[in-house]
Amino acid sequence: MKIIRVDMAAGKITNQEVVPAFIGMGGRGLTSFYVNKEVPPKCDPLGPENKLVFAPGFLSGSSLVNSSRFSIGAKSPLTGGIKESNVGGTVAVDMASIGISAIIVEGLPEKNRSYILKVDKEGNAVLLDAGGLWGKRTYDLVKSIKETHGENHSITCIGPAGEMQLSAASIQSTDMDGRPCRAAGRGGLGAVMGSKGLKALVVEKTKGKSTQIQDLEAFKSSAKIFAQAVMKDEFSSEVLPALGSAVLVEPINAAGAFPTRNARQGQFEDADKISGETMAQVIKSRGGKTTHKGCSGCIINCSNEFVDEKGTYVTSSLEYETIWSMGGMIGNNDLDAIATLDFLCDDIGLDTMSTGVAIAVAMDAGYKAFGDAKAAIEMVEEVATGSDFGKIIGHGPARVGKHFNNDRVPVIKGQSIAAYDPRAIQGMAVTYATSPMGGDHTAGWVVESNLEAFGGTLDPFSAKGQVEVSRNAQLHMAVVDTVGICDFAQTGFGAPDGLENVCKMIRAKSGKPFSAEDWNTTGKKIIRIELEFNKNAGFTKELDRLPKMFYEEPLPPHNKVVVISDEEMDTTFNF
Amino acid sequence: MKIIRVDMAAGKITNQEVVPAFIGMGGRGLTSFYVNKEVPPKCDPLGPENKLVFAPGFLSGSSLVNSSRFSIGAKSPLTGGIKESNVGGTVAVDMASIGISAIIVEGLPEKNRSYILKVDKEGNAVLLDAGGLWGKRTYDLVKSIKETHGENHSITCIGPAGEMQLSAASIQSTDMDGRPCRAAGRGGLGAVMGSKGLKALVVEKTKGKSTQIQDLEAFKSSAKIFAQAVMKDEFSSEVLPALGSAVLVEPINAAGAFPTRNARQGQFEDADKISGETMAQVIKSRGGKTTHKGCSGCIINCSNEFVDEKGTYVTSSLEYETIWSMGGMIGNNDLDAIATLDFLCDDIGLDTMSTGVAIAVAMDAGYKAFGDAKAAIEMVEEVATGSDFGKIIGHGPARVGKHFNNDRVPVIKGQSIAAYDPRAIQGMAVTYATSPMGGDHTAGWVVESNLEAFGGTLDPFSAKGQVEVSRNAQLHMAVVDTVGICDFAQTGFGAPDGLENVCKMIRAKSGKPFSAEDWNTTGKKIIRIELEFNKNAGFTKELDRLPKMFYEEPLPPHNKVVVISDEEMDTTFNF
Repeated sequence: MKIIRVDMAAGKITNQEVVPAFIGMGGRGLTSFYVNKEVPPKCDPLGPENKLVFAPGFLSGSSLVNSSRFSIGAKSPLTGGIKESNVGGTVAVDMASIGISAIIVEGLPEKNRSYILKVDKEGNAVLLDAGGLWGKRTYDLVKSIKETHGENHSITCIGPAGEMQLSAASIQSTDMDGRPCRAAGRGGLGAVMGSKGLKALVVEKTKGKSTQIQDLEAFKSSAKIFAQAVMKDEFSSEVLPALGSAVLVEPINAAGAFPTRNARQGQFEDADKISGETMAQVIKSRGGKTTHKGCSGCIINCSNEFVDEKGTYVTSSLEYETIWSMGGMIGNNDLDAIATLDFLCDDIGLDTMSTGVAIAVAMDAGYKAFGDAKAAIEMVEEVATGSDFGKIIGHGPARVGKHFNNDRVPVIKGQSIAAYDPRAIQGMAVTYATSPMGGDHTAGWVVESNLEAFGGTLDPFSAKGQVEVSRNAQLHMAVVDTVGICDFAQTGFGAPDGLENVCKMIRAKSGKPFSAEDWNTTGKKIIRIELEFNKNAGFTKELDRLPKMFYEEPLPPHNKVVVISDEEMDTTFNF
Repeated sequence: MKIIRVDMAAGKITNQEVVPAFIGMGGRGLTSFYVNKEVPPKCDPLGPENKLVFAPGFLSGSSLVNSSRFSIGAKSPLTGGIKESNVGGTVAVDMASIGISAIIVEGLPEKNRSYILKVDKEGNAVLLDAGGLWGKRTYDLVKSIKETHGENHSITCIGPAGEMQLSAASIQSTDMDGRPCRAAGRGGLGAVMGSKGLKALVVEKTKGKSTQIQDLEAFKSSAKIFAQAVMKDEFSSEVLPALGSAVLVEPINAAGAFPTRNARQGQFEDADKISGETMAQVIKSRGGKTTHKGCSGCIINCSNEFVDEKGTYVTSSLEYETIWSMGGMIGNNDLDAIATLDFLCDDIGLDTMSTGVAIAVAMDAGYKAFGDAKAAIEMVEEVATGSDFGKIIGHGPARVGKHFNNDRVPVIKGQSIAAYDPRAIQGMAVTYATSPMGGDHTAGWVVESNLEAFGGTLDPFSAKGQVEVSRNAQLHMAVVDTVGICDFAQTGFGAPDGLENVCKMIRAKSGKPFSAEDWNTTGKKIIRIELEFNKNAGFTKELDRLPKMFYEEPLPPHNKVVVISDEEMDTTFNF
């Protein structure tokens, strides 16, 4: 396995053998390791010293199902700290199958120069002038690239938002149908890619190849056990294919934890109009796809294709977090508008969550009325124009808050919360506050231990046990993001000896010992690396806090505030 | 002497006796003491917990010449730290003569309510609805207030920028001619006043009254010695009256220390077109005033009245820092345009320095060409419109830099440098970097020890001795700003036993012992208070640094960078 280094200043590409710093290093573990090792923590995230690291998960490109997560790391222009954001689609499998552990993009190009980085199926990389591709939105971009280079490529790219180096800019990647609809949304990594003048990473697909495995038979046998567990679990085999992640709308709303109208309420009275059930019905009645395979090796098919009344494609995949950020959070009950907003964000290259919350903060300040879907669409379109206001929106909620003097800005370390109000699920308060990634839900999703409907046993309004479940979830997830297993396929851990079975695959791939204890140690190692970077960047414990609104404004209908004390918060990473 | 507390939430006014925390407490010493004591350091500067403190200098309202500085303190929305900004004019003398040591404005008013605070000559304060005054620019505002309340008032107020709570908003105060042309410009204190819904502080003038002095005879005798020294000094008795502070243009430019075109050069090729000499000539030829008394008790008359070709008033007073920020810094050699920009900033309520540097950063990013005076005027006018771009400019250079992705932003702790490039006067690097006030020149002006033309003996390009002179200047200035003596009247310290003579006045006023050693101790006390607030607000040593451009880009014509090491910087306040 090799690392490709791309020096944008010199236009030079070099290869090096990867020397893993720990067993199982790939994905997030790899990006965080290199960012911490090579990026000056106090550097300008958009300057020459930052590096953008692309890395497939350690198990990507293998026969393991749902292991096609693609990690992207850098110092974040949104949080000012270390960032890893991962995306599905096809690129991770293609890159891993070619034998590439990572691509590290360094330096800044000459002014006004822009490039695409093309990697062929032999693993040869070349920088090509982006020419007329610069300026394109992602759907059009992907079309043009395929016209020139052929259909057979995974394309990971930025839209106008990334080119403008906006802090809410995403990096989009193509799905199984070749659409740039899957997003590494968080942390503004699209802006880093834009600063490097890199419009797209184009990786040739390699049918038949797969990543190198030391003990293929052992691997296959464990992979089979994992797949069986995924298929046996009702959630991953029935609920997700039928309703997608949008299945969460109803139970989270029922729990009063669905942040509505910039988190002034915990329940949206029109939640039923935008629920997974309603969405599935709408899609079906119009002839779209409720069950759709978005990523290589996926056996869950949680993706969907949302179509309009005429049956024409609008977007894929409409997901829970977007239905929240562009729905309840802005008081919008129009599912069609949500789908349009999702498409626009993918096309312009924007994080749907940061952008929706930015719109919510603007509406909360009185700029437009909550629920004005037309205004929301106009705001997102305006980002693409590069107007002054468009840039303010595109920089995310904190910038919008400053613009309107609205201090009700639900961000931590500059990054917005997700679709779980921390006042009604206190464990999420811990994750949001302490994750080295800033406000983030995937870093430590503890909804299932908090809500009875999910089998939770903790009191969601009490501090008791919350730090511990968040800590454990964050440590576990750091390794999941490192091996590259999809969050929804974690039901595969439900196999008998589930964790040990996954460790077997890490052993089989690496040819080195790796126990369940190593799994835990690896989680700590990765989190420590990330905390070290942030500390050196100047982060203090005082950034591990939620905004005042969550401590001071009781959230209807339960009228609770966050009760995790600062002292408890500070024990989260006490190892 | 009393303190008036104004609770904007309850609309309630209370009086309390002032209990000085140290001898000589007034002005900056008083504002910093109360801000540190009463404002939660991590609070939102525009929220209900911040307090705005107005305080005349300790010696204001006495027979001492040039002691009419008026300190305004709060947590700054620009720097996030403690802030004191002081202004001349007439209000300090009027307030001190009534027997008021400070006015502390607390809380936030009900939404959409705004007020003026009127204090009559008996010291009775009352909140009046601002009504139609809200929204007015300062010149028009002052006219309206005088029509209603009579000519005989000192008016301290905000313009539209303060109402909009922009981070570069100033607080303007009326001069001897009743014009709102004197500015407490720095730190965005106008935004704090705006957040409190306070449009103006209106203080009735009290002819004949003066502040209470314990030993009047002793005071008078020292005040006379001080005044004689001011009048004997060539700089304060001849140069300043003739040319104003603009006299600095030529020597600072000659030293290669005049930051030009967003500090890309240290010399402006057209400096002679905007120099003090040229300005005086222009004003004279048009029948304006080169010598003008701006502040109560002033015997220097460094102020001026700039008029247009028809002899019509344009602005007062055109000063060095503005000639720099709206001249060389934006590459503008048009003195008439500079005068217009100065007037507009006063009228809209903007710091000329932060605003000029904000324009410079925008021009540096390619938004408009350097030297485009028309564009600069349009940008300042746009601030008043409240447009998106106007607000970006009005929030100062850092916000503009983010908007344009331009990291050449000459700010420290969010506040811009002044008209002395730290690469050509290394002592100013220390003051800019370490002052608790953020980038600030008055906090420790060490030009005279650096430049030979001013009698300086230090090498301006070397680190040697710079930390010490800056430390001493900052400690001294903290007390000067506390007693309320004008910076330009510091020539009064040139009297035989100059410092001891000033201490005599502090003794005479307070009736308590106060030695030259106490002067030094008091300086340390005040700086310590300010550092304590900033530390509790989360400031670290790492904020005591200049932006990268000053360490990395050699400044023509001397092609030097800042050479003060971080370690040396950190010894500045080692007491």
